[in-house]
Amino acid sequence: VALADLNGTVIGKWVATLRSSRTPEVIAKLVAAGIKALKKQHKIRSEKILALAAGAPGITDVRAGIVVSAPNLSNWQSVPLRTILEKHTGIPTAIENDVNLGALGESWCGTARGVKNFVFLAIGTGIGAGIFVNGSLYHGSNWSAGEVGYLHVPGTEDTSLQLYSPGPLEGIVGGRGIESSWRTLCHERGVRIKKSRARIRATDIFELAEAGEPEARAVLAQTSRILASAIANISVLLNSSLILLGGGIGTHPVLFEATRQVLEADEFARPRLAVSSLGTDAQLMGAVWMALKSVESKILP
Amino acid sequence: VALADLNGTVIGKWVATLRSSRTPEVIAKLVAAGIKALKKQHKIRSEKILALAAGAPGITDVRAGIVVSAPNLSNWQSVPLRTILEKHTGIPTAIENDVNLGALGESWCGTARGVKNFVFLAIGTGIGAGIFVNGSLYHGSNWSAGEVGYLHVPGTEDTSLQLYSPGPLEGIVGGRGIESSWRTLCHERGVRIKKSRARIRATDIFELAEAGEPEARAVLAQTSRILASAIANISVLLNSSLILLGGGIGTHPVLFEATRQVLEADEFARPRLAVSSLGTDAQLMGAVWMALKSVESKILP
Repeated sequence: VALADLNGTVIGKWVATLRSSRTPEVIAKLVAAGIKALKKQHKIRSEKILALAAGAPGITDVRAGIVVSAPNLSNWQSVPLRTILEKHTGIPTAIENDVNLGALGESWCGTARGVKNFVFLAIGTGIGAGIFVNGSLYHGSNWSAGEVGYLHVPGTEDTSLQLYSPGPLEGIVGGRGIESSWRTLCHERGVRIKKSRARIRATDIFELAEAGEPEARAVLAQTSRILASAIANISVLLNSSLILLGGGIGTHPVLFEATRQVLEADEFARPRLAVSSLGTDAQLMGAVWMALKSVESKILP
Repeated sequence: VALADLNGTVIGKWVATLRSSRTPEVIAKLVAAGIKALKKQHKIRSEKILALAAGAPGITDVRAGIVVSAPNLSNWQSVPLRTILEKHTGIPTAIENDVNLGALGESWCGTARGVKNFVFLAIGTGIGAGIFVNGSLYHGSNWSAGEVGYLHVPGTEDTSLQLYSPGPLEGIVGGRGIESSWRTLCHERGVRIKKSRARIRATDIFELAEAGEPEARAVLAQTSRILASAIANISVLLNSSLILLGGGIGTHPVLFEATRQVLEADEFARPRLAVSSLGTDAQLMGAVWMALKSVESKILP
C-alpha cells in the first residue's frame, strides 16, 4: 500500500505478506490495516484520503468494479472487489487489472512515457499484457484484452482454452511452468535434485543456467524461444513500437538477454525490447495515477 | 474500379484481369483506363470525379501514400502509389492496405456495423487482418498492425521473420501453402495426382475434402487447426467481440465450419466468428468510404 499526495508523489509505503488465506475479505482487511498504519505514521486525517486504486491479478471489469476471474487465486470469480474495499476502508475505490496498472505506471513515469503504442508484458507466476493503442490503455470488448497467458505458440501444449485454468503460454513460461520443466528434465536425465534445490524458483534456474548447469541451460533456451515467439506474435499483430518486460521473471537479465538474442534473427516486426524501468513499482505508480485521475474527475468540472 | 456518388452508392463497376506484368505503372494505367471507361459509360465529366481511393496488398503508409512492401508482388518496395495514381488519373488519391479497406467496408455497411472491437481476417493468396479498436481502424506504429501472415502458432514453421517473404502462418494457411501441403501429402502417400488436378486451387481441395478424399481431408484438418490457433491468439490478445473471415479462402464454407468446430472447444476468448457479408465487395466498399471521407474533409469546415 502506498500513500501519495495530489502531485502523485509517494510519501509512504506499507508492505505485508499474504499467508495462507487469500479471500477477498482477508485482503481487504489487510489493505485497510495498511492504510490505517500509513495514516497514523504520517499523521493524516481520514477526510484527507480522497481515493483508493487497487490492482487485481485477473480479468477486471473496471466499470462494474468486479474481478471476473483470477486463475491464480482460488475461488476468485465475480468478486465485487471495489465494494468490498470501500466497505473495509471507507474510501471511494477504483480497481483495475494489475498488469494494466503496470502499463499505466510505465506510460505515466517510466520507459513508455510518451510512447503511443506499446505493450507492458508482465511475467511472474502469471503472465499478462497491458496494451496501449493510440495513447490509451486498451481493455477489449470484455475487459480481457492482453490475457497473453492463453496464447498458443510453437512449443506450448496444444490444448483448448479453459476459463479458470492458466493458459498454454503461462503453463510453460510462467514461474511454475519453468520450475516444472526443470524438474521434469532433471528427472528424465536421471539428475538427482539436491536438497538445497527442493524449492528452487524460476529465477534461481536462470542463475544456474548462467553458471552452466546443463538442465537449467536447456530450460532457459526453451523458455526464451517460446517467449520470443509470443513477443513476435504480439508485435506482428499490434505493431507496437515498444515491448516492456515486467514482473520478477520478465525482468530477469538472463532471460531478457536470451530472449533478445532469439528475436534478433527476425527482420520483420522486431520490436524495441526493454526491461520495465519502474520494476515492481510499475503497478504501484499505475495505481497512484488511477487514484489521481479519479480525484481529478471529481474536482475538475 | 467502382464509381460511387456522394451518398456512397455504387453506380458502376469496371473489372480487368491482370496479366503477367504487375508493375505500379501498369496497374495505374489500368485503373486510369477503368475510370475513363466508367466516365464514358455514365456520361460523367472529369471535374465531377472528386476523389480516388485505392487498396494495395501490402504494408501501406497511408499518410505518405507509399506502399512500403508487398511480398506477393515482386519488386513492390517503397512504391509511391498515391503519386503514381494521381499522375495517371489526375484525381486526388488516397491509398490504404486492402485488408484494412475490407475492415472499413464491413464497419461501414457490413456485418461489423456498430461493432467497436473487431478483426477482419482476409485469407487468399496472402493473409492479413484489419483491426478495429474502440471504433477506429488501428494502424500500429509503422502501418503494419495486423500483418498476421507472420504469426507463429503450433504447426507453423519455426523460422525467423523475413521482411520480403511470406510469414509462417501465410506459408501454411495461405492459398499456396494449402496447395503445396496437399501436393506434398499426395506425394508422401504415393497418391498419383490426376492431370485434371494439376492446377488445383485451395478451394478445390476443400471441395475434395467435403467429398471424402483422404489427403484433402487431412489438409483441411491441418489448415483449420492452425487457422483456429491463429484466431484464438488474435482473440486472446485483442478480446475483439467479432472475427470476420474474408477472402476467397477465408469465406469458404467448408473451411469456416471446420475452423468453427475447433474453436468450439475453447472456453476462454472464444470469439463470435462470421463470414464477411460483403464478400469480395468489402474492400471496394471500404475504398468508397475512404474516398467519401476525403471529399468530406475538403468540403466540410
